[in-house]
Amino acid sequence: MAVNLAPPDPAQLHPVAGVELGVAEAGIRKPGRKDLLVMRLLPGAKAAGVFTRNRFRAAPVVLAQRRLRSTVRALIVNTGNANAGTGADGLRRAARVCEQLAGLLGCAPREVVPFSTGVIMEPLPVERIAAGLPEAVADLRPANWASAAQSIMTTDTVPKAASRKVRLSSGAATVTGIAKGAGMIRPDMATMLAFVATDARVAKPALRRMVRAAAQRSFNCITVDGDASTNDSFVLIASGAGPQARKASDLGTLAEAVAEVAQTLAQAIVRDGEGATKFITIRVEGGRSRAECRKIAYAIAHSPLVKTAFFASDPNLGRILAAIGNAGIAGLDPAKVALYLDDVLVAKGGARFPRYREEQGVAAMRKAEVAVRAVLGRGRADATVWTCDLSFEYVKINAEYRT
Amino acid sequence: MAVNLAPPDPAQLHPVAGVELGVAEAGIRKPGRKDLLVMRLLPGAKAAGVFTRNRFRAAPVVLAQRRLRSTVRALIVNTGNANAGTGADGLRRAARVCEQLAGLLGCAPREVVPFSTGVIMEPLPVERIAAGLPEAVADLRPANWASAAQSIMTTDTVPKAASRKVRLSSGAATVTGIAKGAGMIRPDMATMLAFVATDARVAKPALRRMVRAAAQRSFNCITVDGDASTNDSFVLIASGAGPQARKASDLGTLAEAVAEVAQTLAQAIVRDGEGATKFITIRVEGGRSRAECRKIAYAIAHSPLVKTAFFASDPNLGRILAAIGNAGIAGLDPAKVALYLDDVLVAKGGARFPRYREEQGVAAMRKAEVAVRAVLGRGRADATVWTCDLSFEYVKINAEYRT
Repeated sequence: MAVNLAPPDPAQLHPVAGVELGVAEAGIRKPGRKDLLVMRLLPGAKAAGVFTRNRFRAAPVVLAQRRLRSTVRALIVNTGNANAGTGADGLRRAARVCEQLAGLLGCAPREVVPFSTGVIMEPLPVERIAAGLPEAVADLRPANWASAAQSIMTTDTVPKAASRKVRLSSGAATVTGIAKGAGMIRPDMATMLAFVATDARVAKPALRRMVRAAAQRSFNCITVDGDASTNDSFVLIASGAGPQARKASDLGTLAEAVAEVAQTLAQAIVRDGEGATKFITIRVEGGRSRAECRKIAYAIAHSPLVKTAFFASDPNLGRILAAIGNAGIAGLDPAKVALYLDDVLVAKGGARFPRYREEQGVAAMRKAEVAVRAVLGRGRADATVWTCDLSFEYVKINAEYRT
Repeated sequence: MAVNLAPPDPAQLHPVAGVELGVAEAGIRKPGRKDLLVMRLLPGAKAAGVFTRNRFRAAPVVLAQRRLRSTVRALIVNTGNANAGTGADGLRRAARVCEQLAGLLGCAPREVVPFSTGVIMEPLPVERIAAGLPEAVADLRPANWASAAQSIMTTDTVPKAASRKVRLSSGAATVTGIAKGAGMIRPDMATMLAFVATDARVAKPALRRMVRAAAQRSFNCITVDGDASTNDSFVLIASGAGPQARKASDLGTLAEAVAEVAQTLAQAIVRDGEGATKFITIRVEGGRSRAECRKIAYAIAHSPLVKTAFFASDPNLGRILAAIGNAGIAGLDPAKVALYLDDVLVAKGGARFPRYREEQGVAAMRKAEVAVRAVLGRGRADATVWTCDLSFEYVKINAEYRT
């Protein structure tokens, strides 16, 4: 299953000066796997984040949003337990874990930012995490991104990482990132964690704009199953150990590299979607606004009937038309909508295109990567969303997750 | 699979004076099954309907909405082909089928209202339907509701019918109805067809109000997979052969019986949801408005993660909390939300209820009928939605539908 690209080559994951990573086996939920990650940042490093909009924010998300407002010296990430749906006790446990790490690193507890992913509504096992921290701290080093990507996996089948080097006016800067997530993926974040770091020196307001813009072009354009989690977090770190990015052109270059890394990570999450056998790009063009194009793209991407048809390589394209019609776009004229599967025009004027033949549709659907393009014929806006199909395996994974 | 009640006893389906039904095997998609239904109404009968809000309305829906505005003498329903996504040619084919039936019944073609369900984007086989019509017309008789319920099934595993007798001030009236549908079910209708008839004499405006009110309490409160179809139709017929319903009390009594029949049919659709193994009642209370309660109820009902957890009988209740948090309700305070599974309080104050024990949750989840109750603590409105779980079988049915 899964439509993964080749796993990231550790040699291609450039270390980021001013950022060290260390992992450990804390046995949080299951023994025999890395489940704890510590990231230590250079003093003066800046960090900004984008978080889930779920009203039931997990305890670590509540703390992280607060702590990212001031100085950050370290991040701590655990898998196996989301510390979500845990109320006031969950906040205390997240804070205790941070205190433990702060003690080991010699910084203030509020300078440690926590992240958790895993089962919801179970108490965070603080003692086990605390017991694993010394191992993670001993492991801290800059060239540890591949191992870090491994350590944050849950139902992921491959680690997810990406790296770029860019030239700024005052020297070369690095952008390297990791992410995890395979289910509960949708706009406005998902059970996904993503950490992208650059050595460039960036002011906090510019960094905030950069992380939001990157999210708009990456993690907010993907969906596996339409469920947004309580824990989704995407953090961008600028360690400040490298060249300054202050001029508009440097900020633009850096922002582009950050967005590219984020987009690669976001697509890697969809490619590894729970039970995915197809990677589907849905592009909606000719809309009146980007918002309506996104609404239609997501209506297609979330339809279980469309997703199961892709799983079956069945060009049941009427299901896509029905999904477009369900998006709730007032005044959308079916007679003006054209639908393409890869480059094949399949529907026009509210009906099957006369020259379209089923074999063409089947040929397009059989591929592991398929593009759906809907042209609305009512404006000039567009939007792209990436998703995957819905397979037996998805049900199996999610029915058996806790057993 | 399926959580069906016992199939309707034909002896309990009271004929409705002034309404005759006839079925036939037209071989529309597959041989060897009834796939054609004709309903003939008494001259002077009134009919009103509620239809899909999908922008890609199927050809028969376009015609039916138009024709229900004036005199109706007959309904024709075919399975196997939805005549949807078929453009102008689809409208011509639907009209031709109506002409054929009008010729046999001796009425005007515009007095015949068409309904179709089945595969989308395939041309309606007019000749095969026309060839089957004489058999259906020869079969016309009032005591044919059970057979009619059989004839409109597609992926349904059981026929769906319900019947009531009520006393009006001028005599006894009958309300009998049938429905079909098992997938693509959601608010604002679904691939579902429902026909409910009464012998009472009802004025057209009152009948229109009655069908809308009944839809609000039945078909617009169910979901299987969140997909609304291009063909959904719910038609209420008042033949006028029986007692008059004009006084407010009579109209109220009749409306209640119609809504009850519609609700039984709607629940029967969910019970027979594609691959369903659980019948789930989701009640949201203590909201500021019915709209926000419905939004939350549907967020729970549509979450694939919640649905797979029910399939697995896994009390992974954090997934329900996450779904509530995803409903997009501004200002919802997680600390005020209480969550019940049947009568068991499982979460309160944004966390698991301390006295809740996993065995209680497992016991509730193992039952074929489960109630979820979320109390929001911010108002006095409520809403109820019925849904089913998401199983391997759902994926199988929808991946193999056309093969």
